[in-house]
Amino acid sequence: MLVYGRNVAKEILNSDKKVEKIIIQEDFKDEMIISLIEKRKIRPQTMSKKEFSRFDKYSHQGIILYIEDFKYAELEDFIYEENAKVVILDHLEDPHNLGAIIRTCEAAGINGIIIPKDRSVGVNSTVMKTSTGALENVNLAMVTNLNQTIKKLKDNGFWIVGTDMEDSIDYREIDYSGKIALVIGSEGFGMSESVKKSCDFIARIPMNGKVNSLNASVAAGIMIYEVIRSNK
Amino acid sequence: MLVYGRNVAKEILNSDKKVEKIIIQEDFKDEMIISLIEKRKIRPQTMSKKEFSRFDKYSHQGIILYIEDFKYAELEDFIYEENAKVVILDHLEDPHNLGAIIRTCEAAGINGIIIPKDRSVGVNSTVMKTSTGALENVNLAMVTNLNQTIKKLKDNGFWIVGTDMEDSIDYREIDYSGKIALVIGSEGFGMSESVKKSCDFIARIPMNGKVNSLNASVAAGIMIYEVIRSNK
Repeated sequence: MLVYGRNVAKEILNSDKKVEKIIIQEDFKDEMIISLIEKRKIRPQTMSKKEFSRFDKYSHQGIILYIEDFKYAELEDFIYEENAKVVILDHLEDPHNLGAIIRTCEAAGINGIIIPKDRSVGVNSTVMKTSTGALENVNLAMVTNLNQTIKKLKDNGFWIVGTDMEDSIDYREIDYSGKIALVIGSEGFGMSESVKKSCDFIARIPMNGKVNSLNASVAAGIMIYEVIRSNK
Repeated sequence: MLVYGRNVAKEILNSDKKVEKIIIQEDFKDEMIISLIEKRKIRPQTMSKKEFSRFDKYSHQGIILYIEDFKYAELEDFIYEENAKVVILDHLEDPHNLGAIIRTCEAAGINGIIIPKDRSVGVNSTVMKTSTGALENVNLAMVTNLNQTIKKLKDNGFWIVGTDMEDSIDYREIDYSGKIALVIGSEGFGMSESVKKSCDFIARIPMNGKVNSLNASVAAGIMIYEVIRSNK
């Protein structure tokens, strides 16, 4: 997988992740990253600005790394933890939103993130970059069937909390103690009908304006910090 | 000012904002927008895909509008309101973050947003687009001197709440009743020193991970919804 940018490079080089190849632009100057590369005993390939321009569709900051593909976690890695809080992303589409939500989950100490295999953004280089290294420190599982996964979570003592404006209650009124799986719907369409039906509670962030549309990663951030509030 | 995209077009055409010119791509088909344009008695200019490609650096969705420049609010428009909650953006740089924060402020019912004139992103077409119409429904003031503005807010009974990791207290422990001005720092550098000094409280969002970096608009969202919580 190709990844790019100085923050990602620093995080990768400081981790034990296998780096297959590094390409830097001739004028690349970040001393810290250069010394990290030397420590790894990797000889980076240097390219002229013109050659490097093939990567200009990425915000590369002069550095590209080829690394082993992202290793998804298994559900079993995190669903047995006491009072586990997990986040289910129901067909999220925008890699920037996925990256920002991964950052929030990492900072909040969420035990695991679950995404479906089909019709959903997965881990690509934009997600890697937007999550600014947080990706390396979260459990991210990709599942074939969200409904079966939710059933499994319920069998393991999870309460399922969805998010929607309809048939919902104020997000501040819900008891988030114990094992909680928070479901965030897709940017355009919210939660799928079948997922919605399996929710034990549906939470609403109250809105007082006229337009009343929160960015998906902002709404997720407000909900995630509410869910971990009970862990205080 | 040039703005673009279907959501923005709908919002603008539904408002009483003056539209100077509309350009659509030949295959533009949004019936609702087309009827809104007709209602306004504007004759849009149609361009071939090739001609229209000059706008391809914007995510235009086939429609561009030229509208009168954004009208900033005055401080006096909102600082006298009872229990006013305002948000100060201390040299924010990324227009996507500004747009997302404007959406959050609109949804949360924040009375006014304050940005400084210098070294800060202002309202441009990206902000217009990212805020998906929310911009039309918020009071956004641009001030020459943040420190003088903060003094004025204090003279008018505001408590100033900053955000930072150092010398700070858990954001859930602060009393946000009465008039509150919440200060959000810039993405890279946080709050300016002088602004920090004039804060009555400094709030910290607790983080439990290793990387611990929240996206600026996500952090702002969590804080803004905490500030309005007391208005429940």
